[in-house]
Amino acid sequence: MGRLTGRRAVTRLTQAERTQVVDTLAVEEPMELRVGGRSLAVTMRTPGSDVELAHGFLLTEGVINKLGDVRTARYCDGLDDEGRNTYNVLDVVLAPGVPIPAPGVERSFYTTSSCGVCGKASLEAVRATTVFSPVADLIEVDVATLIALPDRLRAAQRVFSSTGGLHAAGLFTHTGELVCAREDVGRHNAVDKVLGWALLNDRIPARGTVLMLSGRISFELVQKAAMAGVPVVAAISAPSTLAVELAEDSGVTLIGFLRGEQMTVYANPERVRTTT
Amino acid sequence: MGRLTGRRAVTRLTQAERTQVVDTLAVEEPMELRVGGRSLAVTMRTPGSDVELAHGFLLTEGVINKLGDVRTARYCDGLDDEGRNTYNVLDVVLAPGVPIPAPGVERSFYTTSSCGVCGKASLEAVRATTVFSPVADLIEVDVATLIALPDRLRAAQRVFSSTGGLHAAGLFTHTGELVCAREDVGRHNAVDKVLGWALLNDRIPARGTVLMLSGRISFELVQKAAMAGVPVVAAISAPSTLAVELAEDSGVTLIGFLRGEQMTVYANPERVRTTT
Repeated sequence: MGRLTGRRAVTRLTQAERTQVVDTLAVEEPMELRVGGRSLAVTMRTPGSDVELAHGFLLTEGVINKLGDVRTARYCDGLDDEGRNTYNVLDVVLAPGVPIPAPGVERSFYTTSSCGVCGKASLEAVRATTVFSPVADLIEVDVATLIALPDRLRAAQRVFSSTGGLHAAGLFTHTGELVCAREDVGRHNAVDKVLGWALLNDRIPARGTVLMLSGRISFELVQKAAMAGVPVVAAISAPSTLAVELAEDSGVTLIGFLRGEQMTVYANPERVRTTT
Repeated sequence: MGRLTGRRAVTRLTQAERTQVVDTLAVEEPMELRVGGRSLAVTMRTPGSDVELAHGFLLTEGVINKLGDVRTARYCDGLDDEGRNTYNVLDVVLAPGVPIPAPGVERSFYTTSSCGVCGKASLEAVRATTVFSPVADLIEVDVATLIALPDRLRAAQRVFSSTGGLHAAGLFTHTGELVCAREDVGRHNAVDKVLGWALLNDRIPARGTVLMLSGRISFELVQKAAMAGVPVVAAISAPSTLAVELAEDSGVTLIGFLRGEQMTVYANPERVRTTT
């Protein structure tokens, strides 16, 4: 875990001053995910929790839908120039009968559509693939509980405060208890790590949970939540139009601009309970 | 250009109040890039400047290195269910003699390395592909000029203020004049649009420029700048370790935490001039 951050000599500048200091940075390294011996995807990520990342990626891309679909997941024993394992190649063997996906699987959602590729085609592709629908998850979450989540996520972040360079995702119970938090240079990786952890700990479908995100909400992040059966997604910043459409379509409650004492609910507001 | 933002009915919540309002969101749609009739990549992006996006992507991924390498770039005439062109599929025909890349080209940088995939392999792959090296670009930029850039980029952003949901990239001269600014739901797309604009306007290699980014600096963003010959990259937030290593390696001056009256220089500080 020593590779989460790195220290470097840097130069701090103002108009009049030039100071040499040592700064802490977030580590970014490529990880190659191999499935059945074939390269499936390469992602730039923060090293650590790589087995969770692989499980979360495979789950939220529809390659697997239960833990038993993975037979083994281990680092490939490849070495770099200096004879050390890079721990940047993860080899997954699927259980017998689970189809090995074609490389670039995460794009196949879109490329299966014909020439008129559009948001609607993306929504339909997710609908066709989703196994755990959040639609029927009838939990209620108090506004007061939601208001407390950003600070709880920040408190759970180990790296961010020292580097200022990481996205965070946290899975909470609907009463506001932290279940699992992860950080990454890529926001989709942070979510994959959290949902992969949930799969490895027998918590998929993730009923009764709130997924809290440190940044903006793209289509892809709502897709991941829907694929894992998460009923409520909340974030500090704004969602996109397609993220809102997918949330409506898949029964996910989508909350943005969760800051201070207020928030904006973009889809399925009935799960959020106010005092009035 | 009416598709940059969309309006939706949302619910604003505090503990005691529930208000229905209409909110403006950033539009997100998939774009499929076809080269030589084959699907090369699909990206979730903000519609608009798609021809620039395609040129910037092809340039910074090393598929093309001059404008003449593209013969035509136009929207495919595919229709959606309602008979309308989706404007989400862009068909590029390369000039004779320019090799058509394999699908998933942007990963080939990493997957060409053997089992021990590591940051070093990524750096070497970029070095092997880069045509325009910023190394020899001996410009100097005043600290005072850099300090003014974040506000100038914000002033150039048309959409952000209304949605809070977009990344921005701006290309400036080294004296601080805005050359081109673009926004997108994806930060790499914003950079591709700006650099694609530069290619279409005969400004590649982008000598004497500063690329200003609204967020964090990943390896991929420095890669794009280096591929286009941009000598200085500056951002509001932090870079990753690998972003800094690539900047050093490719001669790019890398500036982070450019906020208020100060900044941190992570690589090649000799291009930045203080008053002392």
